[in-house]
Amino acid sequence: MHNDMQRRLTAEFIGTFWLVFGGCGAAVVSAAFPQLGIGFTGVAFAFGLTVLSMAYAVGHISGGHFNPAVTLGLWAAGRCANKHVVPYIVVQVVGAILASGVLYIIASGKPDWVPGGFASNGYGDLSPNHYSMLSCFLAELLLTFFFLMIIIGTTSKGAATGFAGIPIGLALTLIHLISIPITNTSVNPARSIAPALFAGGSYIAQLWLFIIAPIAGAMIAGVVARNLYDDSSMVETVVVEERRTN
Amino acid sequence: MHNDMQRRLTAEFIGTFWLVFGGCGAAVVSAAFPQLGIGFTGVAFAFGLTVLSMAYAVGHISGGHFNPAVTLGLWAAGRCANKHVVPYIVVQVVGAILASGVLYIIASGKPDWVPGGFASNGYGDLSPNHYSMLSCFLAELLLTFFFLMIIIGTTSKGAATGFAGIPIGLALTLIHLISIPITNTSVNPARSIAPALFAGGSYIAQLWLFIIAPIAGAMIAGVVARNLYDDSSMVETVVVEERRTN
Amino acid sequence: MHNDMQRRLTAEFIGTFWLVFGGCGAAVVSAAFPQLGIGFTGVAFAFGLTVLSMAYAVGHISGGHFNPAVTLGLWAAGRCANKHVVPYIVVQVVGAILASGVLYIIASGKPDWVPGGFASNGYGDLSPNHYSMLSCFLAELLLTFFFLMIIIGTTSKGAATGFAGIPIGLALTLIHLISIPITNTSVNPARSIAPALFAGGSYIAQLWLFIIAPIAGAMIAGVVARNLYDDSSMVETVVVEERRTN
Amino acid sequence: MHNDMQRRLTAEFIGTFWLVFGGCGAAVVSAAFPQLGIGFTGVAFAFGLTVLSMAYAVGHISGGHFNPAVTLGLWAAGRCANKHVVPYIVVQVVGAILASGVLYIIASGKPDWVPGGFASNGYGDLSPNHYSMLSCFLAELLLTFFFLMIIIGTTSKGAATGFAGIPIGLALTLIHLISIPITNTSVNPARSIAPALFAGGSYIAQLWLFIIAPIAGAMIAGVVARNLYDDSSMVETVVVEERRTN
Repeated sequence: MHNDMQRRLTAEFIGTFWLVFGGCGAAVVSAAFPQLGIGFTGVAFAFGLTVLSMAYAVGHISGGHFNPAVTLGLWAAGRCANKHVVPYIVVQVVGAILASGVLYIIASGKPDWVPGGFASNGYGDLSPNHYSMLSCFLAELLLTFFFLMIIIGTTSKGAATGFAGIPIGLALTLIHLISIPITNTSVNPARSIAPALFAGGSYIAQLWLFIIAPIAGAMIAGVVARNLYDDSSMVETVVVEERRTN
Repeated sequence: MHNDMQRRLTAEFIGTFWLVFGGCGAAVVSAAFPQLGIGFTGVAFAFGLTVLSMAYAVGHISGGHFNPAVTLGLWAAGRCANKHVVPYIVVQVVGAILASGVLYIIASGKPDWVPGGFASNGYGDLSPNHYSMLSCFLAELLLTFFFLMIIIGTTSKGAATGFAGIPIGLALTLIHLISIPITNTSVNPARSIAPALFAGGSYIAQLWLFIIAPIAGAMIAGVVARNLYDDSSMVETVVVEERRTN
Repeated sequence: MHNDMQRRLTAEFIGTFWLVFGGCGAAVVSAAFPQLGIGFTGVAFAFGLTVLSMAYAVGHISGGHFNPAVTLGLWAAGRCANKHVVPYIVVQVVGAILASGVLYIIASGKPDWVPGGFASNGYGDLSPNHYSMLSCFLAELLLTFFFLMIIIGTTSKGAATGFAGIPIGLALTLIHLISIPITNTSVNPARSIAPALFAGGSYIAQLWLFIIAPIAGAMIAGVVARNLYDDSSMVETVVVEERRTN
Repeated sequence: MHNDMQRRLTAEFIGTFWLVFGGCGAAVVSAAFPQLGIGFTGVAFAFGLTVLSMAYAVGHISGGHFNPAVTLGLWAAGRCANKHVVPYIVVQVVGAILASGVLYIIASGKPDWVPGGFASNGYGDLSPNHYSMLSCFLAELLLTFFFLMIIIGTTSKGAATGFAGIPIGLALTLIHLISIPITNTSVNPARSIAPALFAGGSYIAQLWLFIIAPIAGAMIAGVVARNLYDDSSMVETVVVEERRTN
């Protein structure tokens, strides 16, 4: 597979599949196991560790976005080539949906299976603790803003080389520690779309929030970061471009 | 944003906002969720991961203090320029207060909202386990002393390059694992002032302890570290000065 | 011990002993302790940290497989010399069985000891949450596939040097966070064989799944990775070969 | 403080104080807090993070032992100079006792204080789960053996530079995840002696096991490691010697 775009899209597909299968899988399968279950702390680590592990495994191929909001935020920051935006987002969403499908097959294979929300995101009545639409919108916007600030900052010139996957992955853990009771935590439209297709009904009707709020937060971060970090500090893009020309 | 001071203050503002929003947010929103809540372990990781993630994201801009006690401790160690001390502390406190304000808006958006202590620090009757003022003062002093020893040690000459954000962030997690039942854990006057303004009453009357004890512990550490580590080992300041002249 | 093969086999023996003793030990001894027990989250970290710690301790000697599926997956990827495959697998299984034996002696030394499943893997009636054979097979296959993608990706050319032990170890934690309720999590035939010999009966009869599914997932990953990563990026093997000729 | 021995002993004093204050402090103060307490998982992370944080903060000064068994194991491996052994052990034990004393003052400052075992180690009736003396001896011996193998392996030639503090600290977390119910976990005579002096009685009578078993395990590891790793790979000692002659 010597074609650069093919390798990138394969990497984004595998990474996003892993994010949704691992994060939602831990939530659906393990969170509420009697007495020994992993609870929200375990789910928070699961989501973060999907990104930490894939950032080091395929980040050097595709940049390791695994999230349409990340792709658009990096694009707004001048860190993602125009021609990558749409293909990245398409394979991310496809990978997420396939992950939810495989998870559905596995998770439904027990006698007392009840799909429930299938780890979908929601606001109002579908928020785990019944937070209002406004609270949920603000939380998703703000948390994705900070997620992108961390992604861009840790990969900018002057930041310690090679470490970025650790703060980025653990920032996603932190984001879940804060906000699972609010929206079940999205900050990632692909992660929201996929399980909602299986949970259906109201979950699909609420998807707009988990598409708009994360993308808005991410793109604001891209613009802010462009001012905070010098253009000359945008090293990741350069490195990736160089690899592409080889 | 090519002005060095502006970039530094933006970094400290963003970092301290994240510390208070993320750490107090996890405590207020997620700690006591029935059965699946993250408990003190999850809150401890949340606080630590705010610092770990921001140390790698903006630490190379401002040094990554996010805490007036850290700024003063580093100043006492000869690691922070005089002219940075007051501006850093001002934006840290402003960032913390804004974070608490936004958190208040989000967290209050559910039907059965009760603000309670809003993750404020306290001693005596306001200590989670009713520890005495003396116990609380000693704990805050000692824990901030060690926090600064770790911050200074991990960034001194001879320490492994690039790693400091990991032990520093996880040391804050450790500090919370020890002391949430004692004071709800401060070691950071900005983190204490912000939620107390929203919790009001007795919490404000107790703020003096969470300003004096952490700062005293931090400045003692600064003096001790100055003797333990050679002056020639104070590399961080040098690096920062170099960046400033560019 | 200057003989290369002896040093490699000693490293694989120690590492696999530690994986089974530590991971299964945490499950048997600590998971269900009343009120304070570590639950599935603690067990997940235990398994992952055995690999993280040994990857850095002996990974530079043997490559740090500790798992027949990993050895076969790396072999399929062209990353493990033919002559290492069988000896590695033999010492891994022997180390795992000895670890279970020593754990049995220690764990049985309390008044109310009941061996139970002794942390064995199982499907159907022996699955912690009674997942079907199909769900269990799919989960083990898929999780081992991703485990190998992460192992190969994090050690391929272009990936950050020195970091691989962190994402690999924490990926094993993540895998346990997802799947303990399904199969008690294997992704490692040696880890499955050893406790089953002590639990006996049905656990032994189900071992086939925990040998076939992980190995199949690993070898598919090896072939996929061979296409995703250029042959020229297979640096680990080269490094190891160089060390061997010294 | 330009005298090398003084700086080393200060580092070992601070590090061992932190290990005992932080690890035992988390156990005494936070483990059993109603509903939100950190349990054994939180205590395991607390102990491990004391070592992770101090290894990066003062490890480059003293080697970061914080434990008489580690000092003796490294000495057996040829990695600690003769003249350091006794002074290191003395300050480690003194630091540990002072830490327990300060912890006692802080922890006793609440209305319903009951000292209990004060996080002491014990076997038989004093084992958290009443494990026999033989089980406890075997567990302490084996776990300290592996702890030293990891310490020596991660700092030997060929291991990734700068990373050792992470696997070493997290190995101590892992060791606690396995064995708190067995002995309350020692693998460190200084950590055992200090709280026993405050718990008194039977805890002191049982101290012999927590001195002999960890030291035996550590010294066996030192001898094994000497054979597994070439003498030429003992880089840490060399580095330390070089620093000393400056």
